[in-house]
Amino acid sequence: MSTADDKTDPLAASVRSLFEASADGTRFESSLDAKMSDVVDRFLRATTVSTEIDFDALCQQFTSSTIPIAPRDVESYIEHLSADVVRHSINTASPQYIGHMTSALPYFVRPLGRLLTGLNQNLVKIETAKALTPYEREALAMMHRALYARDDAFYETHIQKRESTLGIMTSGGTLANMTALWIARNTALGPRDGFEGVEREGLAAALRHRDCKRAVVVGSALLHYSVEKAADVLGLGTQGLVRVPVDTSGRVIVAELERVIAECKRAGTMVLALVGIAGTTDSGAIDPLPEMAAIAKREGVHFHVDAAWGGPLVLSDRYKHRLAGLDLADSVTIDGHKQLYLPMGIGMVVLRDPIAAAAIEKQAQYIIRADSPDLGKRALEGSRPGMALFLHAALHVLGRSGYAFLIEEGIRKTEHMANLLETWPDFELLVQPQMNILNYRYVPTSFRDAIAARTITSDDNAAINAFNVRLQEAQRHAGQTFVSRTSLRFTRYGADPPITALRAIMANPLTTEADIHAVLQDQLEIGRKLEA
Amino acid sequence: MSTADDKTDPLAASVRSLFEASADGTRFESSLDAKMSDVVDRFLRATTVSTEIDFDALCQQFTSSTIPIAPRDVESYIEHLSADVVRHSINTASPQYIGHMTSALPYFVRPLGRLLTGLNQNLVKIETAKALTPYEREALAMMHRALYARDDAFYETHIQKRESTLGIMTSGGTLANMTALWIARNTALGPRDGFEGVEREGLAAALRHRDCKRAVVVGSALLHYSVEKAADVLGLGTQGLVRVPVDTSGRVIVAELERVIAECKRAGTMVLALVGIAGTTDSGAIDPLPEMAAIAKREGVHFHVDAAWGGPLVLSDRYKHRLAGLDLADSVTIDGHKQLYLPMGIGMVVLRDPIAAAAIEKQAQYIIRADSPDLGKRALEGSRPGMALFLHAALHVLGRSGYAFLIEEGIRKTEHMANLLETWPDFELLVQPQMNILNYRYVPTSFRDAIAARTITSDDNAAINAFNVRLQEAQRHAGQTFVSRTSLRFTRYGADPPITALRAIMANPLTTEADIHAVLQDQLEIGRKLEA
Repeated sequence: MSTADDKTDPLAASVRSLFEASADGTRFESSLDAKMSDVVDRFLRATTVSTEIDFDALCQQFTSSTIPIAPRDVESYIEHLSADVVRHSINTASPQYIGHMTSALPYFVRPLGRLLTGLNQNLVKIETAKALTPYEREALAMMHRALYARDDAFYETHIQKRESTLGIMTSGGTLANMTALWIARNTALGPRDGFEGVEREGLAAALRHRDCKRAVVVGSALLHYSVEKAADVLGLGTQGLVRVPVDTSGRVIVAELERVIAECKRAGTMVLALVGIAGTTDSGAIDPLPEMAAIAKREGVHFHVDAAWGGPLVLSDRYKHRLAGLDLADSVTIDGHKQLYLPMGIGMVVLRDPIAAAAIEKQAQYIIRADSPDLGKRALEGSRPGMALFLHAALHVLGRSGYAFLIEEGIRKTEHMANLLETWPDFELLVQPQMNILNYRYVPTSFRDAIAARTITSDDNAAINAFNVRLQEAQRHAGQTFVSRTSLRFTRYGADPPITALRAIMANPLTTEADIHAVLQDQLEIGRKLEA
Repeated sequence: MSTADDKTDPLAASVRSLFEASADGTRFESSLDAKMSDVVDRFLRATTVSTEIDFDALCQQFTSSTIPIAPRDVESYIEHLSADVVRHSINTASPQYIGHMTSALPYFVRPLGRLLTGLNQNLVKIETAKALTPYEREALAMMHRALYARDDAFYETHIQKRESTLGIMTSGGTLANMTALWIARNTALGPRDGFEGVEREGLAAALRHRDCKRAVVVGSALLHYSVEKAADVLGLGTQGLVRVPVDTSGRVIVAELERVIAECKRAGTMVLALVGIAGTTDSGAIDPLPEMAAIAKREGVHFHVDAAWGGPLVLSDRYKHRLAGLDLADSVTIDGHKQLYLPMGIGMVVLRDPIAAAAIEKQAQYIIRADSPDLGKRALEGSRPGMALFLHAALHVLGRSGYAFLIEEGIRKTEHMANLLETWPDFELLVQPQMNILNYRYVPTSFRDAIAARTITSDDNAAINAFNVRLQEAQRHAGQTFVSRTSLRFTRYGADPPITALRAIMANPLTTEADIHAVLQDQLEIGRKLEA
């Protein structure tokens, strides 16, 4: 219907009323708000992690492919949402869900989530996000200072300068890593001797111009798969990510890195970037950043650090020394939705050099003009929501000391759990934790003597692996507690076979020592049942 | 502090209490909820678009670069937020803000924004998003069916099949376009004759293998700058985006497209994809999709359509014929935060072939296993929030007829405004609208006769351009009403100089005919003042 006359057209009236911020609209909205608060509250108070429903069975409940013709009233939709979707969601905030990098959030982010949706600003340009533009820049400057600690004059100059970019917010760590490598590639293969640069002429032409067959990114064998994805997207190919072996703590072996660099030189391969990790996804291992930074500097190569997980350690005076060398990185990825305790969807890349992002700048005559302060001109994404609201708020409400407490608590509890694991004969600690992630496994009774005597064989490890896969799946299916699993090639047992590890992450401030005990107890019981 | 004893450590107690879903937590949260509702409500009811504060002056209020040490109480932070940030935000929902693609949203998305943050699911894998995984697939299948209208058997097979991908949700249209071209590139340069494919070996090796110097994407001169960004990121270079001239309606000229394709063949340049537009950002123009699809088919080239703006026209029986040929596209970008009336941060690429996304699939031993139903394995992004909540809800609450009403209303009001512009001598309509975007300009009195007589010169146009820039900036600064501006090279006046156009977008269901009149009246008064 395309009439404007609501009186004769009930559909028009009802659709339009959904958009009105009128008295009636407010009344409906308040009642929905209250309902939603109840739904969230019940969800967050659940003592289990998830329902037992089998995933494939759950899928059978979502098989409608036709958009319904008629509108449906909000109430009945919310009932469906609550019963069929929320109920079967994962309580990532549960104190006994210690298997992934998602944890409880501070309560104020939930009302802020509503504000974010209410304001509906678009950070791509100031015409759609006036105050949020300088506000986001302020939050990113705070992150820059926490990492790089430049002086007051530096920040006074750059914090709101249109030509400067201290950091770029992204939807997550994957895009942050990709953005950093995009900048590195475009800088290393920039305009020269009449060549207009990879940005304009493309990668094949850039390599021909340098008379070089191949360009690569070099980093740890344990680099997150987002870096592999970035290598593919950026045209280097996944083989263009050269992975350096790590030691039994999961840290890059510097001598191996030197060997890889020397090999690249011999082969005439151009190294576009060296990538270090501050907190591997598997184990929380921290690469030897000062040594890597020195090599990158010597070779004149961009040094990027994926600190998606570990970056916030810089906020703890007690532990920031573990990230020594991070301030030597040209770019650093940090995830807000990990150890900054913000909702999903907030990543950032922080840039040491305020003009580095010029290498990726794009304008659009019609909208992002060259001289504008629009944030969209130096970013992988275009339109995006004002997620800086969460970051800015949390930096203030928690403060540096609040974050320090959270980081230190996580490490304290990790040490507690590691001690428990070493005293319980049913478990074997596989890697000494460097942060707040633990890799361990359940050892079936028949293998315990061989573990103690260090006489375990590859076949034994294969059997123990299979057992731990079953254990983790049974635990996940039961839904009472949760720990994830991974596959490690760098433990003292070597890579043949890779060792299946249970993976616990100590980040939820609500997780107590009793919770840790309960999770292990749950695994113990499942393990014993499986053995029987 | 790393003690667990809250009694002796007030910081520990206060930080931990922020995370608790306890009785106290709930009480604080409810009070904050109420406050936030007030803030949003006041913001949305404002009759102006923005405050008059100068942007550079506003920036001077955001110059702190140090994270405060001590926590700050939530209440006082929210006061700062409300007074200094919300107040100076842009009321994109205002009925008289008709200049960008952001409009009023249905009220239920605001409580849903809170739910999204409360659930904090991570769609990268089912261990962090159980029900939301099939739920998102269901919403994407509905979009697929709206576009491609395959039969029941097709959807029964693919809707929840792990190997199939009917669409990929992204943070926005930019990433959706990039994902489509990534798939196109990896498919066109896939494994062959011992070559392992661009995905593994990279772009330079892929082109050497094909004995080809250059690979390009071909599309309209009016393609959104995100496609240029994608060409850079994907290693083609911005020169690897070949732009085809458009007619005076802003539509690709098919003969010119044929000429470009023939030239590429002559030069031995490989065409990776042909990109059409369904609703240009400037003018809402729709490319000749059936002709473009036929050419792409003949040449064996991926056909992508950027329907970020126009895609939802398929939901209107009255207007869907304008998008004829869209169902011939291999991939289609649609933005949720545009004409699906969802909050910022929701894009999607819909894929005709359910296995097309295999070309970008990545696994990670430790987390995204090959046989898993995890959505993260075929996506540009990694961790991401459950934005499908908004899409699924709106498809049901508005229904197809609700969306049809919104689309039809926008076109009706556009026609109304176009008629007004043609009768008011102060304005000149520059492009006949094909959808709900209008390009026009204010004509200072001294030029009106020349406009009528069609004797306007380039110098005249330059002067009229400068006048319209001043007019739009004055209007934006005053903050009462808002229309954006753009620069057009395809009007009857040609490209020298490009014509500065005022750009109005008729998408807000709250915008009435009186609002349209008020916006034009505002411009009229500003124009007359500037002339005086």
